[in-house]
Formats: sequence, C-alpha cells, structure tokens
Amino acid sequence: MPVNLVAPDPAQLRAVAGVELGWAEAGIRKANRKDLLVIRVAAGATAAGVFTQNRFCAAPVVVCREHLARGSAVRALVINTGNANAGTGPTGMQNAHLTCVETARLLDVAPEQVLPFSTGVILEPLPIERLLAGLAPAIARFAPDHWAQAAETIMTTDTVPKAASRQVKVGTQHVNVTGIAKGAGMIRPDMATMLGFVAMDAAVTAPVLQALTREAADRSFNRISVDGDTSTNDSFVVIASGASSAPPIASTGDPRYRQLAQAINDVATQLAQAIVRDGEGATKFMEILVEGAGSVGEASRVAYSIAHSPLVKTAFFASDPNLGRILAAIGNSGIGDLDANRVQLYLNDVWVARDGGRHPDYREEDGARVLKGAEILVRVQLGRGTASTTVWTCDLSHGYVSINADYRS
Amino acid sequence: MPVNLVAPDPAQLRAVAGVELGWAEAGIRKANRKDLLVIRVAAGATAAGVFTQNRFCAAPVVVCREHLARGSAVRALVINTGNANAGTGPTGMQNAHLTCVETARLLDVAPEQVLPFSTGVILEPLPIERLLAGLAPAIARFAPDHWAQAAETIMTTDTVPKAASRQVKVGTQHVNVTGIAKGAGMIRPDMATMLGFVAMDAAVTAPVLQALTREAADRSFNRISVDGDTSTNDSFVVIASGASSAPPIASTGDPRYRQLAQAINDVATQLAQAIVRDGEGATKFMEILVEGAGSVGEASRVAYSIAHSPLVKTAFFASDPNLGRILAAIGNSGIGDLDANRVQLYLNDVWVARDGGRHPDYREEDGARVLKGAEILVRVQLGRGTASTTVWTCDLSHGYVSINADYRS
Repeated sequence: MPVNLVAPDPAQLRAVAGVELGWAEAGIRKANRKDLLVIRVAAGATAAGVFTQNRFCAAPVVVCREHLARGSAVRALVINTGNANAGTGPTGMQNAHLTCVETARLLDVAPEQVLPFSTGVILEPLPIERLLAGLAPAIARFAPDHWAQAAETIMTTDTVPKAASRQVKVGTQHVNVTGIAKGAGMIRPDMATMLGFVAMDAAVTAPVLQALTREAADRSFNRISVDGDTSTNDSFVVIASGASSAPPIASTGDPRYRQLAQAINDVATQLAQAIVRDGEGATKFMEILVEGAGSVGEASRVAYSIAHSPLVKTAFFASDPNLGRILAAIGNSGIGDLDANRVQLYLNDVWVARDGGRHPDYREEDGARVLKGAEILVRVQLGRGTASTTVWTCDLSHGYVSINADYRS
Repeated sequence: MPVNLVAPDPAQLRAVAGVELGWAEAGIRKANRKDLLVIRVAAGATAAGVFTQNRFCAAPVVVCREHLARGSAVRALVINTGNANAGTGPTGMQNAHLTCVETARLLDVAPEQVLPFSTGVILEPLPIERLLAGLAPAIARFAPDHWAQAAETIMTTDTVPKAASRQVKVGTQHVNVTGIAKGAGMIRPDMATMLGFVAMDAAVTAPVLQALTREAADRSFNRISVDGDTSTNDSFVVIASGASSAPPIASTGDPRYRQLAQAINDVATQLAQAIVRDGEGATKFMEILVEGAGSVGEASRVAYSIAHSPLVKTAFFASDPNLGRILAAIGNSGIGDLDANRVQLYLNDVWVARDGGRHPDYREEDGARVLKGAEILVRVQLGRGTASTTVWTCDLSHGYVSINADYRS
C-alpha cells in the first residue's frame, strides 16, 4: 500500500534522444515476468555512477566500477532482477563479465563499454544461461519510449514502478531528463540507492557528469531510509547521451550546469521519495527536517537516528503520538555534548517539546491529529548552529515483517 | 512468547543480608498492579552504577548520578514503572528530588542517600502524588525474601519477571548474589540496560565496586540488543551490603575480586539474556559470535550490524535461510578495508559461506534445519586478527510491531 504514489503515466515519460530500452522475460527467478533490461546508449555519450559502500558489494558493482574507471565510452547497461549476484565469489565475477561479453557481441561494441547490474537474492548462483538467452529478445525490443516498461522490469518487492521525467531549458536548448529506480527494502543508501538510472540528451563531459551525479545522489538517494540496511548492489548511474546539438557542458562553472543539476536533482529526488513511498509495508511518509545543527553531518546523524528507530516507526504506524520516542532517538544520535534543554520538536504545525520538555500547551489530540495523516513533517531544532538536513523515511508495519519474512517463498 | 525463559522460582532467589524489598500498587499508570518498588540497604553498604549514554537521559538518572558522585552512603532505591519521568523538564527534576525527600523522611535517612529510578512512557508528567502515597505501603512490606515480587514490580512490556541468584565462595566465606532486571524493548544498552539491580552481602569498597559493576555491565547488558534503540532510563546498579563478616575487598588485586566478579558477571549475564529471551515479540534467541577481528571494537561493530539488521531479524523470524542478508550486514558494518574474500560464516555446525562466497557443500536444507531451532549461533570469522566478541539478540516478528504499535493503548 504505497503512500500517495501511483504508477507513472507512460505518456509523461519523455524519450531521451540517443537512449533505447528493451526488456525480456528471462526467467531468472520466476517465469512470466519482465526481469531483464538492456539500455543502449548512442556513441559519444558520457556516463557516471556512484555505488554502494557495502564491503560485500556484488560482482556487477565491481565490474561497473572497473569499466567506468577505465574511461571507455559506455554503450550499454544490462540489469537483471531476481538475483543479486552477490556473495557468489569468483563464479559471480565470471558471470558478470560473461554478461558484458555477450551483450557487447550482440551490439558490436567492446565488453568494457557495457555496465552490468543485478538485484534480488544474495548468496545464490546467477542463472547465467537464462540471462544470456534473454539478451537477444530484449535487444529486439529496443525503442526510445520504453521507459515505463523499463521501470516495471527492474522491480523486485516494489509494488509500483518508479519513473520520473522533466524537460528543462538549459542555455537556449530544451533538455529531456528521464529516470527510473527500484527499491523498497534494504534501503539506507550510502552514496547510492538500490538501482537508479537517469538519462538526458544534453552533452556533458565525464568529470562534470560525475559532479552532477554525486550532487544528485547526495540530495536524493542518500537522504532516504526504509529499514537502515545498505544493499550490496546499490548503484546510481547518470547518462548524458550528447544527442542534443548544444556544445558540451565542460565545467561546473558553466551557467548551464546549475540548470541541468536542478533538473537531475528533481528527477532523482522524485525517484528517491517514490522508493520511500513504496517502502516495504509503508503506510506513512515522513520528512525528517533537522535544523540548528553544528554541521550537516550532525544534522544527518540526528535525522537518521529518528528515521531508523523501530520504536518511532511503529508508533507512527499506529498513529500513536508516543512522541517521547523521538526525543529518545535524538538523544541516542551520538552527539556527546548535546544539550537536551535546547531541543525543540514540532510535528507539522504542532509544537510538541519546548526546551527539551513537553510544551505546556501541547495536547495529545493535536499530536494524534497530525499522525492520522499519511504525510508527516518531523521538525527538530537542536539550538547548536545553523546547519540543517532533510531525510525521508516511512513507518514500520506488519507489512514490512510479512514481506521480509516471506520474501523468498 | 519468551524463548526458553520461565519465571524464576522464588525459592531459588537467595536473600541478601542487609537488603530488604517492598512494593506497592501505586496506580502510576494503571490500577491494580505492582508498580512501585522500594529497596532498603543496611548502613555501611556501598553502591555503584552505570547509566544510559542517551543525551535525553531521564530526570531520575540525573539525580542518581548526582547522588552517587557525592559519595553519600546509599540507603534506599525507589523504582516506579508506568512513567519514565523523561522529557519532563524542570518539573521532572523536582519530582525525582521529591521522591528522594519523602523516602528519606519515611526511612530516617538523608535525601541524597536515596537513588530514584523510573521506567515507562516518555514525555508525560510523573503522577508524583500517587507515587509519594505509595511509598509508605511499600515500606510496610519490607522483607529480605521479596526478590520475586520485586522482579514482578519493575516489569513493563516484559512478559516474564527476571531474576537470578548465585551463592559463591569468596575467600573463606559464602556470598549471596541476587539480582533483578526489566526490559523487553528500546534495548540496545550503552553502558547499562533498561533497569538492573544486583545486590550481595559481601563488603566491597566503592572504587572496587565501581570496577565490578563496569565489568559486569560490559560482559552482559552491554552485549545485548532487541531493537537497537537506547533507552533514556537505562540504569544498572550493584549494591554490596557489607553484611558479611569478611573484611572488605578493597583492591582489584585481592584474590577474592575475581571470584566475586565471576558471580556478578554470571548473574548479570543471565539477566541480560533473559531480557533478550523476553524481547518484544521474540521467537528466537541468537548468539552472534564474531572472531578473527582486528580489535574488539571491530568485532562489536560487525556483531551489532548483524544484530540490528531488520532483514536478518525478519528472515530468522520466518526460519528462512536467506543468509546473504548476514553477509550484507557484515559488509555494512563500517570497516573500510574489510576483505570480503576472507570472511567465513557458520550457523551452528553448518559452514554457510567460505572465503566470502557460498560454500560449495552448503545445502539450503542444512540452513533451514538450524533456523527451525529456537536457539541459533551465528559465527563469523573475519580473518583479520585475533579479537572476538559475543552479542545476544532476538528476531523481529509481527509481535514486535503489535506490541510497539499498541504500547500505550
């Protein structure tokens, strides 16, 4: 039951010149469902990515990093669901390489121009024969307007496909920015989300694209949490196809940089929030805004301490204004010299705690009224400085336990 | 549905000379239940405590720290359930002091010789009139053999009272060590547990008792987690009544120190494990043993990363050997230079992952067999050094969500 989230209208997802998408039902884990996506990118495109910091990163993540580091022009992305190809040892690495080799052969490019991605169960062998057999049918479906189907193909426990699109004026040109993402559990991205792909038809040099990608990740996927677990396969990749005729953006000082960054940030944030809205078992969408911190890092620690607290999350699920749990989470965020007597807590328009204690005018029914809604702003003022941050999260419900207790069955 | 845990047999709980316990039904939050405990300690006793590191610590914790720091001989402990007296501002502090003043008046001691403790809902005013009115009836029930009733009195969401007792030979004397604890949720103690009290009839000087207390906390309550939340009220206090005729233990070098430490550690560990066995919604008891770490801190980070992972905990609830989630949690523990290829994972006697990948002989049915049991050893070998640690935790079930969504109703 996603929170205020519906499947994207395919007509609203703009094609990106120079980018084609095709899918297959490869039977990786289950039959009769789209589970293999191939994206072809025109020659001359640039690509940048950020990846999970989990030390048990999956084989495809290792290969992606290698291929991007080598600086070869990216020509294709291959994404399978149903299996994460993580915790699979040397055979897993070999299978990730085989995926690139076969895709390269079919598209007449070099293997290092292919980026592989996998998502699904960890510690199980990737059924590589079925994956390879699915590549040709996927490629046969290549079309620039297949973004909605692409979003559907990469779903795992997602209940709604996630896609977003913008057209933005960059300099004198219109640029299309379109992206897809998947993810609903094991969500506490650390430099990236489960899987996110954004493409645009602007031309951007590789170092500038890397800066754009990192900024977008930091403002979107790096600000969400469903359950505090970081996946082995988190990847966020941005493609600039260069199909537009405008000269490339080659410096972060180019005035067009900020215009483009804004559009990418918007698309990435919409996708990141969609992941939270469709968080496993989610019934509420919470924005945690922490202000008055000594640094952004400090604000972030407080925000995540609230976002990760099972007690806060279950109270929100119950619409129970048991708001002392939020104070406990703030106190538990590892700021050794935090002065509790300077902390203010607000829920939407309700002032709950003043100077560390219950506000004398706070009435339980006001807290209950806010918690009955599906979208809740938790605002904390620490009284320590001027830094702030925002994190998005969802509640913890029976649905989460059911989904994760039954995930493989 | 606690895991292999039954209520203590009152006959097995040894009285500690110099310690008397009495309770009342004060109606702090609900009527007709024991919710106020007073413990009187003989003159000449020493006391030591460790307390929550949560910066939103409760008013009684502040007062306990003050009174212990002042070095006055402790003569009484007062514990109420139903209200945490946390997030209650200056009124909360006043109420904690009032509790000490009235108890002192009734027992003819000084207010700073009383230690107050509260546990229950945060951010709600303590009903101080009802608490004060309950003191006299509690004191009227003073008796040395009321440990079982005391354990019952301090319960909140606990389903089973928690008490443990040992008789140990220290030097030439027999010493009785008896303790009680409470706690089932908001459990990730940081230098202490929710509430734990251990008393013995040995004589121990204050600095030595502090060393004993810290060691016992580090080996017991500081190694458990139910949900990763640290309470505002965590307190662990050890009393040495000095009622025994043996000369006081005045140095950690005294050969009797290790004998006594072992008994206190045993009692504290039994109580700490009882908290996990009665963890909110628990159906499984897991021991996480991390070996081959570069330091104990490193081992502890890995152990808690596993113990706190909602995905690991829900898989255990489902008896689903989705064991890649354990690898993801290990990789997610913040050890930047962890080499996944050196990691071994065992479940009881089953070798699941060898050198970072699935063991070729591992069969799913072997994992499933282990997970069907109620007591599971998760053993991780990091291959980095010789340090190790053990953490105890439980699974995450529908019961946890139900209990915490309904806690105040």
